[in-house]
Amino acid sequence: MNGLYKLAELDVNLVEALTDRATELRRGATPARFEGLALGLLFLAPSLRTQASMQRAAQLLGLDLVQLTSSSMWGLETSEGVVMDSDAAEHVREAAPVLSSYVDALCVRSFARFETLAADLADDVFQGFVQHSSVPVVSMESALWHPLQALADRATLDQIKVSTRAKLVLTWTWHPRSLPHAVANSTVCMAAQRGMDVVLACPAGWELHEDVLAQARALAEASGGSFEVSHDPDATKDADIVYAKSWSSLGSWGDTAGESFKKLELRSWQVTPDSLGSGARFMHCLPVRRNVVVSDAVLDGPASLVLRQAENRLHAQTALLEHMLSSTAGCESPLKIHAEVGA
Amino acid sequence: MNGLYKLAELDVNLVEALTDRATELRRGATPARFEGLALGLLFLAPSLRTQASMQRAAQLLGLDLVQLTSSSMWGLETSEGVVMDSDAAEHVREAAPVLSSYVDALCVRSFARFETLAADLADDVFQGFVQHSSVPVVSMESALWHPLQALADRATLDQIKVSTRAKLVLTWTWHPRSLPHAVANSTVCMAAQRGMDVVLACPAGWELHEDVLAQARALAEASGGSFEVSHDPDATKDADIVYAKSWSSLGSWGDTAGESFKKLELRSWQVTPDSLGSGARFMHCLPVRRNVVVSDAVLDGPASLVLRQAENRLHAQTALLEHMLSSTAGCESPLKIHAEVGA
Amino acid sequence: MNGLYKLAELDVNLVEALTDRATELRRGATPARFEGLALGLLFLAPSLRTQASMQRAAQLLGLDLVQLTSSSMWGLETSEGVVMDSDAAEHVREAAPVLSSYVDALCVRSFARFETLAADLADDVFQGFVQHSSVPVVSMESALWHPLQALADRATLDQIKVSTRAKLVLTWTWHPRSLPHAVANSTVCMAAQRGMDVVLACPAGWELHEDVLAQARALAEASGGSFEVSHDPDATKDADIVYAKSWSSLGSWGDTAGESFKKLELRSWQVTPDSLGSGARFMHCLPVRRNVVVSDAVLDGPASLVLRQAENRLHAQTALLEHMLSSTAGCESPLKIHAEVGA
Repeated sequence: MNGLYKLAELDVNLVEALTDRATELRRGATPARFEGLALGLLFLAPSLRTQASMQRAAQLLGLDLVQLTSSSMWGLETSEGVVMDSDAAEHVREAAPVLSSYVDALCVRSFARFETLAADLADDVFQGFVQHSSVPVVSMESALWHPLQALADRATLDQIKVSTRAKLVLTWTWHPRSLPHAVANSTVCMAAQRGMDVVLACPAGWELHEDVLAQARALAEASGGSFEVSHDPDATKDADIVYAKSWSSLGSWGDTAGESFKKLELRSWQVTPDSLGSGARFMHCLPVRRNVVVSDAVLDGPASLVLRQAENRLHAQTALLEHMLSSTAGCESPLKIHAEVGA
Repeated sequence: MNGLYKLAELDVNLVEALTDRATELRRGATPARFEGLALGLLFLAPSLRTQASMQRAAQLLGLDLVQLTSSSMWGLETSEGVVMDSDAAEHVREAAPVLSSYVDALCVRSFARFETLAADLADDVFQGFVQHSSVPVVSMESALWHPLQALADRATLDQIKVSTRAKLVLTWTWHPRSLPHAVANSTVCMAAQRGMDVVLACPAGWELHEDVLAQARALAEASGGSFEVSHDPDATKDADIVYAKSWSSLGSWGDTAGESFKKLELRSWQVTPDSLGSGARFMHCLPVRRNVVVSDAVLDGPASLVLRQAENRLHAQTALLEHMLSSTAGCESPLKIHAEVGA
Repeated sequence: MNGLYKLAELDVNLVEALTDRATELRRGATPARFEGLALGLLFLAPSLRTQASMQRAAQLLGLDLVQLTSSSMWGLETSEGVVMDSDAAEHVREAAPVLSSYVDALCVRSFARFETLAADLADDVFQGFVQHSSVPVVSMESALWHPLQALADRATLDQIKVSTRAKLVLTWTWHPRSLPHAVANSTVCMAAQRGMDVVLACPAGWELHEDVLAQARALAEASGGSFEVSHDPDATKDADIVYAKSWSSLGSWGDTAGESFKKLELRSWQVTPDSLGSGARFMHCLPVRRNVVVSDAVLDGPASLVLRQAENRLHAQTALLEHMLSSTAGCESPLKIHAEVGA
């Protein structure tokens, strides 16, 4: 395993082995130790859970941490052939190989920047690091994918024994800001790969990118699950799992004012006790805007899985780094992979 | 001991044992080690001494450090029932339990925000963390209290053998900004609990909150000391200890322009060689504005204790964390508590 | 060795021993360990390489790290006798001794501030730390010098066996911003101390400060090298090493608009395949603005040494800290110093 961009690039057996290991670690299994190896953490966007849980995962594995945040770094350029006479002082063509020469693996958080849709669809910042690094690069959320969240979410579903054929509805919600697609993309693909009946519920015009829809369909087909898109806000009502998230419309990417106007009438897209069917569980990646994305009553009630999801970030990341660095360190991975073809 | 909000919530025998231990550590005693435990440090306000000394204290105790600062985090909401459609992206109801699931104890710095007096008097940010965390929460300064500064200050007084019946005058000083009450509140209560003759000297209208005055009076009564308020700028002249600090008027909380106008004539409230009696020592929590709060001549002269106070931050925090984490780790605290009722 | 301000303050034999050790470390030599010692890293200016490589160097040496960046600190004052009623909340007269009481050595990055030329020529921030610290202070770049870059650059030249009599041309380049002299000053002095034939190529009015020119001349005389200034943009064409850097004119220090106007016609001062002679190698400290300071073709071609320079930052710093802390720890330095007079 040489870095991680999106969860669905991993074989399903490896994903299962990783979530099993995350659950073992949650129950107190002892992580492998990689004394002397260094992990770089590069945060180009804000973070609470990811910063804290990556720091802790690295410590549990005995790693040294090399940490940088955008607030104390140079502005980063990723375009090829550009004349750098504007704000950015450093190109990823230098940043990536230089950091690679100090650490054994590099974890990067790079949000969608909402400058051009093409740049965000190319995931230019993260891919720049992948292309120019000489060590494995792990995404801590890029413009398009959030694989560590997806892994933690799958571990959460497994731990509470949600059937692989249960119905998961990812519902768009209103939000005052324009937000990226990373979690939404990752959620539908994770659930489709898990074999679930997956529904993407959103207003017309807020669909995820067609490439992502195609990936979700292909994953569902391979796993025996299903995937469909609904524009019905009541699509959540017969779900087993309601996963809430807001994201921007591809049709008004980077046009904050235009998007705000388009969604003026959409504030009712919010998860409430009423929109959540009885027996359904609620998921969200956090941070979540209370009484905007989801009502207090849902978040503070027994249906909510959000704190377990967040806790599983730690265990999922520990499992992933442990497996990935086992090959760096030349030792055996503690994963039990059940199929012939796995790692 | 389950976290720390203000020093006066600790039994006086425990406070004495902690300052004795701080002094032992200053003299080279070996701290206990808590390998494998993790300490979270959350800085929602700027810091030099606290950041540096908490990092070092944790290292001396063998702790792993999970560190977050507001510059790389989401804006934090603390109100209950609020519709989060403004700036704050994350609620303390999630932030606190999530961080609790990664660390064994959590230290939080949260200033007064000067938005509403009620919120600051409720110490809403810090209390939000206490209420929603599942691990002990230690204040690294909240809107109302700075217990680690108070512990270091008491250790400083003990080390240089200031009599417990000496006179300590906490004097307000002019300052270009509006500042919180945390250090002022903590100083009068620490000194009153220590049995000192405590005077709060400030212009009329700049008194500390009546609840704090009542606490200081009660602590003085219990300890055999005394506490009074004076509006005489010359109250410092017969003090053994002059502790300088600026703070905002409760009558113009959050009204920066109004307060600036009210204090136009008060620039003479500054500690100078003249206002410091002969033989008196000078204290301040730092950072200090030279020739505004106190003149260079005092700060650079033999009367100043400010560097020892700052150094004692390290030792006091090491002592406190060592005692607190002893129960987390299930080992015996190295504290020697002299009374029957202590921890 | 008690801290480091500029490389040329070290005896040439010590410099050679440090670069030899850096090269040994690059080849896999095991660094000494200083468990229990703490290194303070204080970043008052942005950084990628320096932050990451200092963190890693400290970890390889077993040091604890106490880290502060300006984004989470108080504004710092350095003038003597000033009335601090403006922005800065903390004076270096407190910051330096306080941090000294927590760590065993302190590394400081403090850029030129372009407020007054006199302050930057006095290197007031860095010298304030040196004057008021009780532990060794190492520059991670000050207004005038960048000794760790110079040490890494010298290690780079030695590793690829550039003759000590080769010709190094430091060429000024156009840049959209006003930049300090630290790297330029350090480069000419490092190369002159190494015995090289050094040319400073820049437009008239962009010469380095006369004190630096005098130092470079004196170092060249002592080493048997040479130093001259040229205003010919083609001076790079017969160089063995072309080192590019932009810096501000002493004649318009802090006057961004004036300087921009003065350099309107100077955009052709850029390193291109044409300005680089055949067989010449290209150096830059990074971050570098592509197609402004140097063309992609040079940077991505075989002539470029920039990634090796950056990697050597790690090894040079490890070597320097290892030597410096050996005396702190009371153990023998691993350096092999070839002359009688060395450390």
